[in-house]
Amino acid sequence: MIEKLSTSRRRFLGWGAVLGASLTSCSESGEMTDEGPSALGGPIRKYGERSPHEQAVRGTRMLRNPEVGSSRTPLEDTYGIITPSSLHFERHHSGVPNIDPAEHRVLVHGMVDKPLVFTMDELKSLPSVSKVYFVECSGNSGGEWSENGGPTVSTAFGLASCSEWTGVPLRALLEMVGVQSDASWILAEGDDPCHMQRSLPLAKALDDCLLAYGQNGEAIRPEQGYPLRLIAPGYEGNTCVKWLRRIKVSDGPFHVKDETSKYSELMPDGKAWQFTLEMDAKSVITSPSGGQSIAGPGAREISGLAWSGRGLIERVEISADGGETWRDAQLQEPRHPMAFTRFRLPWEWDGAPATLQSRATDETGYVQPTRERLIEERGRNSSYHNNRIKVWHIAADGGVTNG
Amino acid sequence: MIEKLSTSRRRFLGWGAVLGASLTSCSESGEMTDEGPSALGGPIRKYGERSPHEQAVRGTRMLRNPEVGSSRTPLEDTYGIITPSSLHFERHHSGVPNIDPAEHRVLVHGMVDKPLVFTMDELKSLPSVSKVYFVECSGNSGGEWSENGGPTVSTAFGLASCSEWTGVPLRALLEMVGVQSDASWILAEGDDPCHMQRSLPLAKALDDCLLAYGQNGEAIRPEQGYPLRLIAPGYEGNTCVKWLRRIKVSDGPFHVKDETSKYSELMPDGKAWQFTLEMDAKSVITSPSGGQSIAGPGAREISGLAWSGRGLIERVEISADGGETWRDAQLQEPRHPMAFTRFRLPWEWDGAPATLQSRATDETGYVQPTRERLIEERGRNSSYHNNRIKVWHIAADGGVTNG
Repeated sequence: MIEKLSTSRRRFLGWGAVLGASLTSCSESGEMTDEGPSALGGPIRKYGERSPHEQAVRGTRMLRNPEVGSSRTPLEDTYGIITPSSLHFERHHSGVPNIDPAEHRVLVHGMVDKPLVFTMDELKSLPSVSKVYFVECSGNSGGEWSENGGPTVSTAFGLASCSEWTGVPLRALLEMVGVQSDASWILAEGDDPCHMQRSLPLAKALDDCLLAYGQNGEAIRPEQGYPLRLIAPGYEGNTCVKWLRRIKVSDGPFHVKDETSKYSELMPDGKAWQFTLEMDAKSVITSPSGGQSIAGPGAREISGLAWSGRGLIERVEISADGGETWRDAQLQEPRHPMAFTRFRLPWEWDGAPATLQSRATDETGYVQPTRERLIEERGRNSSYHNNRIKVWHIAADGGVTNG
Repeated sequence: MIEKLSTSRRRFLGWGAVLGASLTSCSESGEMTDEGPSALGGPIRKYGERSPHEQAVRGTRMLRNPEVGSSRTPLEDTYGIITPSSLHFERHHSGVPNIDPAEHRVLVHGMVDKPLVFTMDELKSLPSVSKVYFVECSGNSGGEWSENGGPTVSTAFGLASCSEWTGVPLRALLEMVGVQSDASWILAEGDDPCHMQRSLPLAKALDDCLLAYGQNGEAIRPEQGYPLRLIAPGYEGNTCVKWLRRIKVSDGPFHVKDETSKYSELMPDGKAWQFTLEMDAKSVITSPSGGQSIAGPGAREISGLAWSGRGLIERVEISADGGETWRDAQLQEPRHPMAFTRFRLPWEWDGAPATLQSRATDETGYVQPTRERLIEERGRNSSYHNNRIKVWHIAADGGVTNG
């Protein structure tokens, strides 16, 4: 404890020596007076909004029309590990349905002893859990297969977000209906116009899948599946079926259209990988990052996010010299499995061009690969599951660009 | 691990037996068809909003005019441990200033070697941390001194909320200015029209106080102190000075007007307690709770929130028989010190009138007292720091009222 304190004291004294030089001292400033605003401020409100000075938005991308597309979280404008619900990424196949929770039903059927239909009130009366989990579209970072990937964190990594989800373990419902002994998969189906469907292994459904009705303390947002979303922790986002209306138990996967036309990966040998469900370990530096500018040489913090579909992030290393040397970043505690982990590292920029990158390792020992290593392993036929190490270039004028 | 699984299996099977009886079976329902909505849903959006079906709001209370008052978090409508920022409670003394972060400055001066003024950009370049902490007004539950306290969780406990805060440790700034050796207290001052001020021990400032600019992933909300709030973990909410503009180091407390006219506690012997800064351990059942109604006898979950200004919540016990017997609730993990802890307990209501209450114990061994015990100790001259055990009465028709 003493040792930790003295370490932090040394570190902060170091920062003072560096940053203090550029700070305005009190006697010079003349800016602080005892005069405050002369009028009263704004009133109390029933439901708050952010400051008008804050303008971060999701970057939107229509694939066909405004109902079929995606919007990306501006991760470079977020703090900590929680994504503000208003900025959680979207990926819709037929738009956001407006569902009245009083009318909503969830059917659990198939290879079960007693199929059941649940109302939202019935689900909410069941034992619940709250967990912090990321959700990431398997198409996130699809532009990163090219040498010149996305110019900003939002464009390159913005199809990933992290929330505190509250809901009922799917296991509870499956045990109520009585899953038959030869069952091995489930189908999850959404209540959007296209009835989005995905197959998941029964073992996953019994392990940690949640039927979530809460997100970051309030009801789940419409674009995240209001009033109910399946959360399959660590699995590709499209398996976390939104507006959940049906769970069907079966003895094999369903090979629905979204599992054949999409979300499979063609390998160099002409064979396709199917059901590549777990998201690989990944990280990105969010500050400084593409599109930002460093005011000048001196001390600053490097910060970013790391996550893995296979559990805890165990380590994040940062290189500021193009990958020659690496330093361990501090990881924000408590870490949660299958959730964003914020990493931070004090850094002093000397004003010379620099190349920043981060490399995550998860609790299975898996290490985030370079782009070259990724292509070597999987070829370039598929755009899914790109978790390459992201490189940011810092120019002498402080401008940060995709490296 | 095996044992845990089988325990949970038994529990869920039990739930199925109870709840399943009242559920609609698939073949009877006729409600689930393959027909979905015929039109596309809503489009992707740059900044999301909650569903129009969700209407939870903060209950507002003007003390003099809309700028001087409070609004209360509807804790009974929240999930998990994060309070949605839009529903975080407010308590303002002169309204919410509209501050341009580019113009905002923070002065650190007094008994220091080198007073400094910080811009927001300078603060944000410093090493940061993110922590989940509750903030509670010391006047929360002021109505609970009476036998017939607040009718709902919101009215009785709503001046408490919990967020993931991101910012700079105050320690970092104090080490940069160089605190003189005989200093022992600080003053924190806000940039609201009344320049709200509070004294805090220097030891606390050096321990875990944060200058927070982030809340739940985004910039701190205007009514929480945008662009910068002092977070003094576990201390009474008014010490967490909003719109922070100044920190002054001194060799004693300042006895400012809000520490003499308010926020002190007159004891039965005529002496006043001052600087009762730590919030005592407290808990409240949020579901079922006052104003709600239980649909009918059967299985359901009891859920609520507990917190302590002195660290971790170690235990929450629940009684459903007026305090004769108590059962340990499950605590949501990971628990965070000085943060909300969600507790949950499966319960089966037999339809007879019942009396529900929760009792928290924190890591210091402190146990939440009854109202009688509290009055015995402190008398009734002060309305602050009421952490009595809250009692909910359930009538035979399922209606829940203040007990």
